[in-house]
Amino acid sequence: MRKLKYHVATTLDGFIARKDGSFDCFPTEGEHVADYLESLKSYDAVLMGRRTYEVGLRMDVTDPYPLLKSYVFSRTMKKSPNGRVGVVAENAMEVVRKLKEEEGADIYLCGGAELATELFKEGLIDEVILKVNPLLLGSGIPLLHDVGRHIDLELIGSQVYSSGVVLLSYRVKK
Amino acid sequence: MRKLKYHVATTLDGFIARKDGSFDCFPTEGEHVADYLESLKSYDAVLMGRRTYEVGLRMDVTDPYPLLKSYVFSRTMKKSPNGRVGVVAENAMEVVRKLKEEEGADIYLCGGAELATELFKEGLIDEVILKVNPLLLGSGIPLLHDVGRHIDLELIGSQVYSSGVVLLSYRVKK
Repeated sequence: MRKLKYHVATTLDGFIARKDGSFDCFPTEGEHVADYLESLKSYDAVLMGRRTYEVGLRMDVTDPYPLLKSYVFSRTMKKSPNGRVGVVAENAMEVVRKLKEEEGADIYLCGGAELATELFKEGLIDEVILKVNPLLLGSGIPLLHDVGRHIDLELIGSQVYSSGVVLLSYRVKK
Repeated sequence: MRKLKYHVATTLDGFIARKDGSFDCFPTEGEHVADYLESLKSYDAVLMGRRTYEVGLRMDVTDPYPLLKSYVFSRTMKKSPNGRVGVVAENAMEVVRKLKEEEGADIYLCGGAELATELFKEGLIDEVILKVNPLLLGSGIPLLHDVGRHIDLELIGSQVYSSGVVLLSYRVKK
């Protein structure tokens, strides 16, 4: 079965963006960025919440991952502004379950917190890969919301970049 | 001048405890614990917020760091239950500034979020040392609250333990 990996940049205090969804406080250059772009080749599909998708839309980016099959999860978005990007409005967890059962490479969950929380609740996330940036925000959009229980992880990889970004990879214990 | 170091255990998503202040989800055995106990020798004073102190009090621990000069910061606590533990009720930031100017070893800030936030606001924290535990809580007591700006850090050390705990040390950029 294909793995679903929640792979995001965070601050040291666990925020994936400021409250308004912006994340220009994260460095966009350096070795960790090259590694991230390389890692995208290990996926063939990407899932994102509507708010995460809209961060790109505000910059007129309607297809943020042109090399991946793309799915936006939203109960309110009626129509995708780009024919290549699908909208999942109903039975979201069932859709993800089926996607995981299909043949193919791993699936990339790029954000945000609400979608990740639902997926954690259903036990559908297999790995968490965090690019921990050397800064504290104190408030913002968290990595996830309350799942109702704690989630145990197993550290399976770590890398420290000269930029101070630390890449930490975990398997979700089930 | 003595450095003030915010040195705490967190979850991967940035919580230092559950909402009720408990943190028994963090492993209390392993090499990282031995290293932590060794690191306490580099301090000669410890600062903590009232809520953090009360976590120990609930287990009848009135002097959690018997080898360090201990200060509890509280606007409501009238009297310390232990003669060795001082209560700082007023001019908290001024007290910390003076402590930092005294001769001695570095100062340990062991928690919690409210005190850390005030100290970050005043630019009084010099280093952040996190023991990142391999688990997600989704909610709880955060590392800090909103400081009103973001805080840039410089990674100055990292260590990965076989338990999956990752120790990350940062200098606060000023």
